[in-house]
Amino acid sequence: MEEIYFDNAATTKPYDEVGDRVLQLMRECYANPSSLHSFGMKAEKWVRTSRNTIAKSLGVPAKDIYFTSGGTESDNIAILGYVHANRKKCRRVVTSKIEHAAVYEPCRLLQQEGVEVCFVGVSSNGVLDLEEFENSLTPETGLVSVMSVNNETGAVQPVSELKTIMKRICPDAVLHVDHVQGYTKVPMEIDRWGVDLLSVSAHKIHGPKGIGALYVRDRVKADPVVWGGGQESGLRSGTHSVYDIAGFALAAQMTQQRNTSGVTGLMRKALGLMEERIPNVRINTPRNGAAPHILNVSFLGLRAEVLLHALEAHGIYVSTGSACSSNRPERSRTLLAMGLTREEVDSAIRFSFGQFNSEKEIEYMIKVLENEVETLRKYSRR
Amino acid sequence: MEEIYFDNAATTKPYDEVGDRVLQLMRECYANPSSLHSFGMKAEKWVRTSRNTIAKSLGVPAKDIYFTSGGTESDNIAILGYVHANRKKCRRVVTSKIEHAAVYEPCRLLQQEGVEVCFVGVSSNGVLDLEEFENSLTPETGLVSVMSVNNETGAVQPVSELKTIMKRICPDAVLHVDHVQGYTKVPMEIDRWGVDLLSVSAHKIHGPKGIGALYVRDRVKADPVVWGGGQESGLRSGTHSVYDIAGFALAAQMTQQRNTSGVTGLMRKALGLMEERIPNVRINTPRNGAAPHILNVSFLGLRAEVLLHALEAHGIYVSTGSACSSNRPERSRTLLAMGLTREEVDSAIRFSFGQFNSEKEIEYMIKVLENEVETLRKYSRR
Repeated sequence: MEEIYFDNAATTKPYDEVGDRVLQLMRECYANPSSLHSFGMKAEKWVRTSRNTIAKSLGVPAKDIYFTSGGTESDNIAILGYVHANRKKCRRVVTSKIEHAAVYEPCRLLQQEGVEVCFVGVSSNGVLDLEEFENSLTPETGLVSVMSVNNETGAVQPVSELKTIMKRICPDAVLHVDHVQGYTKVPMEIDRWGVDLLSVSAHKIHGPKGIGALYVRDRVKADPVVWGGGQESGLRSGTHSVYDIAGFALAAQMTQQRNTSGVTGLMRKALGLMEERIPNVRINTPRNGAAPHILNVSFLGLRAEVLLHALEAHGIYVSTGSACSSNRPERSRTLLAMGLTREEVDSAIRFSFGQFNSEKEIEYMIKVLENEVETLRKYSRR
Repeated sequence: MEEIYFDNAATTKPYDEVGDRVLQLMRECYANPSSLHSFGMKAEKWVRTSRNTIAKSLGVPAKDIYFTSGGTESDNIAILGYVHANRKKCRRVVTSKIEHAAVYEPCRLLQQEGVEVCFVGVSSNGVLDLEEFENSLTPETGLVSVMSVNNETGAVQPVSELKTIMKRICPDAVLHVDHVQGYTKVPMEIDRWGVDLLSVSAHKIHGPKGIGALYVRDRVKADPVVWGGGQESGLRSGTHSVYDIAGFALAAQMTQQRNTSGVTGLMRKALGLMEERIPNVRINTPRNGAAPHILNVSFLGLRAEVLLHALEAHGIYVSTGSACSSNRPERSRTLLAMGLTREEVDSAIRFSFGQFNSEKEIEYMIKVLENEVETLRKYSRR
């Protein structure tokens, strides 16, 4: 049976070239980049050139890029690290109700530490409510954290407009963007939009797992969350994973060279066919302003896990929510914040597409869906 | 020019089989182990079996092993995470003056947070002073953190004796062992010695970089340092780096199957030849009770960096101290704690051996050292 991977928002297949690069460096360039000898310097050069590549992909100076163990750690440094380093001017944090757990959980920890945290709601299409956002800002607000693309619905958030509003009310507050789902997929103008901190991850863009980066604007101070040997200018200690760093940079280069319009086409096709062929669906991804790769659909009357396993029996892999929280049987915060009913939330499937998918795969999946949804609905009615 | 890598305490060459395994899983098993579908479960199975392997290598239950991004993060969770989760019973922490920065820096952070931290000294051979250790314990002591093998000198620490002493004075205190340099190299009896928390890292045992583990004894509670999706039972959030985890387990298996007596032989040979052929050296590694792989020697009258670069010109890679702190030009805390003079500290070279080294390489290095040390000493006398 052919396998069809429609779970690219959970993680992606590394490019073959990325695997080759990782293996090559494991064989040839295994020294510790912190070592003083020339063998260590060769490894350090891979870290340096990779830093340049990631910086270029974001249009920022290389010195402002810090490698981390992944998006989760990047988010933690941006939130816990920033607030801990700026306690006096950070008595209030404003974020949204639809953030990834890597932002949400650190914010909850800050609440326990006595920091006021406001979780702003979204409209029914899953986009941050800018009026509520504005009303939630106070002069005491020191940090704002909003994702660029929601990981469950693909809704693009109005990141470009946040700093303008912040400047009126809390001009010293910094803006963190969790760009893990948006990186290389939606426009990001760090300077023009006034982004101060920004998280990215390699494994969402066909790079290795366990590696990410945090952009920190010049003169923005953050504490580490992991302390030690002082790597990454002290912001993230621990021996550099040179292989993963180089694989990350190669993936960033390769993914940008490829056209994402292909992926958008797949998403549009799937959306169109689903509405045409499958009765009683609710499209939870906004019609306009969605990332190219995520399509979230509620199949009313079904339980998402049941449909997920039915699709898997045909070799089709999808998700019921974000993979990162799938071990915990909680209802999606994002879909609830959009005002979906319990039934709509419990029947929601996330299809997420990538550069390795094809139109043929979409067509096959739609056929399978037509049959399975009808059959399963019959059973669940009995 | 043949390259001779004598910096195995900084990091090691991954086994070819480890590289192959990493590549294989990047190609075939890239799903997110937190995904619900069977493709995710295949990845999860690699995580599970790898956890079993690491647990077996330490003689502990698999459920007590938590994967982290490396030794530094393991140490941070053990120290910051433990104290933060047990504030009331953890008003005092006892550690040593010769710990790695991954333990030392978190301890300094705790001091800033108002926790009393006592850094116990070592005798002239670099071994923890047990009398001073005993005197430093108080009923308020909640955590003790001592490394099993010092990363600069190879001195094996009396970990087996600590808990007995602790039980008399602070019976509820937990014992953390930074086992990063000792793992698979020196005996470790977690249960018998009463170790409660223990850190290991893959890249010191011919595994990948960026992956490590923390043992946490049943019912010992620690906070995460990175919060998010709740992987690793909530202790360490972030998408699992399946490739690295599987590579780590394979390295642990392979390194245990091989005989470390070969490495001990190389170290003994290097030590003997150095004393025989090179005048005016001070051996900083203890004659008895040293790990098999580390030899620290002061070449009096020379600056270590100068000798390091002279050796590198012959393709021989060594270290001046721990790689992790080599970016910071501070004098070795370890050697200073042992009572070495400034000159002795500044002329200290760490040779660290591994399974890929040979007797021939040792002989070649000794020849090079004979010439270079003589020549450099002539120059430095002028």
